[in-house]
Amino acid sequence: MRAPSKINSEFHLIEKLFAPHADAKTAGHLRDDAASYTPTPGHDLVISTDMLVSGVHFPANATAEVVSARLVGSNISDLAAKSAKPVGCLLNLAISEAWDLPFLTDFASHLGAALAAYEMPLWGGDTVQSQQASVSLSVYGELPSGTMITRAGAQIGDDVYVTGVIGDGFLGLQHALAGTRGDSLAAYHAPRPPLLFGQKLRGLASSCLDISDGLAADLDHLCVSSHTAMQVTLADIPLSPEGQAYATSAETLADLLSGGDDYQLAFTAAADKAAPLAALATQNQLRLSKIGTVKKPVQDRFEAAFVDGSGQILTLHRRGYQHF
Amino acid sequence: MRAPSKINSEFHLIEKLFAPHADAKTAGHLRDDAASYTPTPGHDLVISTDMLVSGVHFPANATAEVVSARLVGSNISDLAAKSAKPVGCLLNLAISEAWDLPFLTDFASHLGAALAAYEMPLWGGDTVQSQQASVSLSVYGELPSGTMITRAGAQIGDDVYVTGVIGDGFLGLQHALAGTRGDSLAAYHAPRPPLLFGQKLRGLASSCLDISDGLAADLDHLCVSSHTAMQVTLADIPLSPEGQAYATSAETLADLLSGGDDYQLAFTAAADKAAPLAALATQNQLRLSKIGTVKKPVQDRFEAAFVDGSGQILTLHRRGYQHF
Repeated sequence: MRAPSKINSEFHLIEKLFAPHADAKTAGHLRDDAASYTPTPGHDLVISTDMLVSGVHFPANATAEVVSARLVGSNISDLAAKSAKPVGCLLNLAISEAWDLPFLTDFASHLGAALAAYEMPLWGGDTVQSQQASVSLSVYGELPSGTMITRAGAQIGDDVYVTGVIGDGFLGLQHALAGTRGDSLAAYHAPRPPLLFGQKLRGLASSCLDISDGLAADLDHLCVSSHTAMQVTLADIPLSPEGQAYATSAETLADLLSGGDDYQLAFTAAADKAAPLAALATQNQLRLSKIGTVKKPVQDRFEAAFVDGSGQILTLHRRGYQHF
Repeated sequence: MRAPSKINSEFHLIEKLFAPHADAKTAGHLRDDAASYTPTPGHDLVISTDMLVSGVHFPANATAEVVSARLVGSNISDLAAKSAKPVGCLLNLAISEAWDLPFLTDFASHLGAALAAYEMPLWGGDTVQSQQASVSLSVYGELPSGTMITRAGAQIGDDVYVTGVIGDGFLGLQHALAGTRGDSLAAYHAPRPPLLFGQKLRGLASSCLDISDGLAADLDHLCVSSHTAMQVTLADIPLSPEGQAYATSAETLADLLSGGDDYQLAFTAAADKAAPLAALATQNQLRLSKIGTVKKPVQDRFEAAFVDGSGQILTLHRRGYQHF
């Protein structure tokens, strides 16, 4: 994060709003060209980034609190899925005219609180002006070398699990777009990925990712990377009361399975891991649901089939939400 | 970098255009939620990021080659200034309608060549659509633990140096804006920061940064971080033939000192380092100029004074270019 040549708004932004959230040892109070981080010996660095664009990934009139919570939640979700402990982050801000100093002050305050909650200090970043506001975070986590849980480890016969409930991200987005209210709005506004639970999945899960594109699309991603298929029992997919009230037809149920933004974890594990996983979920006060089984793919169709009570496969015309 | 739910343009972008430039071991062919990097034992990670916005940091009609070269050059410049060896990078792309598939194909090709030249593979990233195109790179370098050259180490009595010539970034921008040609256009289009030279500055330079905001502004940054002042001899500032022809008055000379985008290094070093620095410059076929001296600040004025042949201090109404 570069300081400009004189006291002006970028300088103030960095010095007044963001430097208080920086790690002085690594980031030098955001006053240098780069941060310098000493990795923990014997650990790998896990690196991920997500961009959110105004009007695409959050409503153009979203509050600073919502933008901050969605930015941090969507990025922490990737570290949770890879079983990594956060150690730092970089922030890139493209600021539009609509984001005035009060908005940015509010944003920095909420961002700082969220970063503190995850013990993930700011290491640096860059700020520019743009016609359309956008925010990017690059997040850094650590884990013992060689232990990252990838998408590629699912084995035929493994159980398929999800955390939390599915579809509240979709329902919350509908509330946000329509200006209505409901319990799911909080899930959309402030995703809370199960970070501590995810960090304990090493040695238990054979593959994992976060559910960001939609459950169907994301299970397909596990299948493609692992060269497997999956069979999922529709009745076992956990829904909130609001989700249950919404999913009264195959079409509306499909909305919940292909809507994005859940920021829960989907993972696979061998059958003998069921007991320790259940115990771990209880310890973390987390809802954990076994929803299906990893299957041998038929004719290289690496995808998940969703089966109803009569053994019929639900047809999904759309498998995921396309942010792009 | 997330793969979407079906074969579509984002999938193609990642799989066809960017995955060939990824490091398979670290980035898993860009097919997972995150990259996993095993840091070199005993080394620190140096981390920096720069965003470039269309119409702000490059002309809206810039070619893919220019966008790629400016993106990589401006980021490598930060690693050069910190004396770090590149090890990887993340790419965030906000794609506007003007950036069609041929443009993006061209961009990926040039980016891949630039990353290969710096041995800096792609570790991941994110792609979104936006009304205004922008590109961000986060770059990662390594150096022996605790050896990063900061902005804060300048000592009173140290010599002040710059690499290359000053002001060609400014002159090249004028060509780019006016559609005219000149030798400096190449310096603007494809900055070539002295990376290998920068990596050898550990143990020689007491402070260093890259000249991106303008020489005057950036020397001020060294002064502020180091709590010093500087005196610079105008006649010793290296100019290209084009720069010499342009700087016929105090006003036009001031343009070159406060224009940004040079992506050369400015650093300080103790007087007894003059001989090894000169030898290092010769080995690297690099123009190195001693332009001034670090001074004790008067009344906490942490800034550089530019002195002409008659001992007068040049008045600079502007000290740097404000990208923000």
